[in-house]
Amino acid sequence: MTTTPAGQAAPIPEPGEIMAREMAEQPRVLQRILDEGLPAIREVAAEIGRRRPRFVLLTARGTSDNAALYAKYLIEVGLGVPAGLTSMSTASAYGARPDLTDVLSITVSQSGGSPDLVGYTEMAKAAGALTLAVTNVADSPVNRASELALDVLAGPEKALPATKSYTAELLTLYLLIDAVRGGDGSAAKGIAELAAAVLERRDEVVKLAERYRFASRLVITSRGYGYPTAREAALKVMETSYLPAHAFSGADLMHGPLAMVDNVSPVIAVASEGAGGRALEPVLDRLRERGADLVVVGSREHVAGASAGFTLPSGVAEQIVPILEILPLQQLAYEITMARGLNPDSPRALAKVTQTR
Amino acid sequence: MTTTPAGQAAPIPEPGEIMAREMAEQPRVLQRILDEGLPAIREVAAEIGRRRPRFVLLTARGTSDNAALYAKYLIEVGLGVPAGLTSMSTASAYGARPDLTDVLSITVSQSGGSPDLVGYTEMAKAAGALTLAVTNVADSPVNRASELALDVLAGPEKALPATKSYTAELLTLYLLIDAVRGGDGSAAKGIAELAAAVLERRDEVVKLAERYRFASRLVITSRGYGYPTAREAALKVMETSYLPAHAFSGADLMHGPLAMVDNVSPVIAVASEGAGGRALEPVLDRLRERGADLVVVGSREHVAGASAGFTLPSGVAEQIVPILEILPLQQLAYEITMARGLNPDSPRALAKVTQTR
Repeated sequence: MTTTPAGQAAPIPEPGEIMAREMAEQPRVLQRILDEGLPAIREVAAEIGRRRPRFVLLTARGTSDNAALYAKYLIEVGLGVPAGLTSMSTASAYGARPDLTDVLSITVSQSGGSPDLVGYTEMAKAAGALTLAVTNVADSPVNRASELALDVLAGPEKALPATKSYTAELLTLYLLIDAVRGGDGSAAKGIAELAAAVLERRDEVVKLAERYRFASRLVITSRGYGYPTAREAALKVMETSYLPAHAFSGADLMHGPLAMVDNVSPVIAVASEGAGGRALEPVLDRLRERGADLVVVGSREHVAGASAGFTLPSGVAEQIVPILEILPLQQLAYEITMARGLNPDSPRALAKVTQTR
Repeated sequence: MTTTPAGQAAPIPEPGEIMAREMAEQPRVLQRILDEGLPAIREVAAEIGRRRPRFVLLTARGTSDNAALYAKYLIEVGLGVPAGLTSMSTASAYGARPDLTDVLSITVSQSGGSPDLVGYTEMAKAAGALTLAVTNVADSPVNRASELALDVLAGPEKALPATKSYTAELLTLYLLIDAVRGGDGSAAKGIAELAAAVLERRDEVVKLAERYRFASRLVITSRGYGYPTAREAALKVMETSYLPAHAFSGADLMHGPLAMVDNVSPVIAVASEGAGGRALEPVLDRLRERGADLVVVGSREHVAGASAGFTLPSGVAEQIVPILEILPLQQLAYEITMARGLNPDSPRALAKVTQTR
């Protein structure tokens, strides 16, 4: 039990209270980034523009790795610069020392404290890369190892399943890459209000969660900008409810794992308006043919063709939609967990270690 | 039913016969690559050496994507050149046209026929990349779209779950990258005999498969060169037996999904001799603490610390081990599938489409 500065015992939080609070904070965090974050973002963007990197490497783990994948799409599509996700063990286990001249190395991390991330960032700097830390802790070791740094301004994250730091990373990375292109970030205007409106529709999510209460597996699929959302949703479900959830890009799903899906296997598709959602349509057709239980998070049209769904507001730029579409999926992970009588604030992985040693 | 050239009905294969035959062909395929493939590999390596790429992009799907990930490690560690896996939808859905000057773009594919792979390869060539096709069909569309090409010499692959084309891709990519470094491929000498000896130990795999017959999930973990093996093993299990199998790098597993693992959740760890296996040790300790059912495929020492395992021959170069360690895992997927009364030669995904339309 923690104590308050006045010495009184702090109330023990209800199960799920911490995660619920941080999910609910997201509109305020997004607004804070728009209100206070832009000057620093523009400064970093200007420096990147001056250095003109020819390749980008993104280094991250877990939830932040999904934000990094989102940034990879933005960079390749928006900047016309090829980008890759780092395999840290090439450096840490095998001592790889690649030539990183003309490379921008971005390390994305909530805490900025993981030794493997710090090690890779130091290596990248020594190997000639321009290094940028995108973290939620302004003075973290990753920041100190980097030439440039951005704070995602989510405030201290206490829940073990990361929520607000994820959407904060997405918006920060969006604004950064848009600024490198010379954009003014205007596509993100109003994102905080939209996020608040989506989060208010918790009742719809509670209803969706019912169908997964007794599920023994879950497949989540998407393409394009929605694919990082599918991966993050699967991770969130696994971390909190222990339900095995697989994320597949629609194209990979068609290549083999489709065998796993039939009329008793639930599938969630993340299908927004725009090119990513259109590219997913053949996959949705195939899933319907197979009689899969298909829930869509996305556009009205895609939801209409599914067994059930959650419709996102229309008219939002496709690159911005990931900030909204993860919200009902975070809530879904939370509701499945609560419905199963588990506590999303204290995943078993930690409790277990304390018990057994 | 197919007919022979003489007009007689060909015998209907027994369930699993096709996949079993192709798994068993692997030592011969590996020997063929060593005997016949090296001149072409050295020619391509010389051209790559002349062009001195500064960044490598690897484009693939499914099983070949796991071979591409293996190549990414080899390239970063062995050549000191940063490498990334392509997100094809950036080009196909969003029209990204990155500047690929100084980039080597390698497309890895069994058939070389997937339109998305062809499209990406054409885009990469037009964008200035040096393009290389690594396929199992010498005159495939991907080959025609590429400046350079290598045939992995596995012969026609008839089983739906790819096995021999995977190990053929691994060996071809190993020999290629070794040749770019000026190596003579000597670390791979004897690989065919070693593979034959591993494949002969089918009884051990049948015994391991018993513990997964009634499992409802499977987690497979590794680090470094073994991580592509973990991903390929999970894919093979999912495609054939429909058992949900998750591959996690050891580091990612510690970040959250560990909550999914407890004393009723089976875990397979791929832990070879060398740096990758050593880097996995903290993860193995943590899994043992949690009481996970831990099976190790790898070194004698790591197997000794597990509930059960399959010991690989010692003294093989760590970069070559992936060619061996996938073999018992392919067999495991096969045996789990047969034990469940399913046919690994005709995954449900195909049969189902025929039934429902």
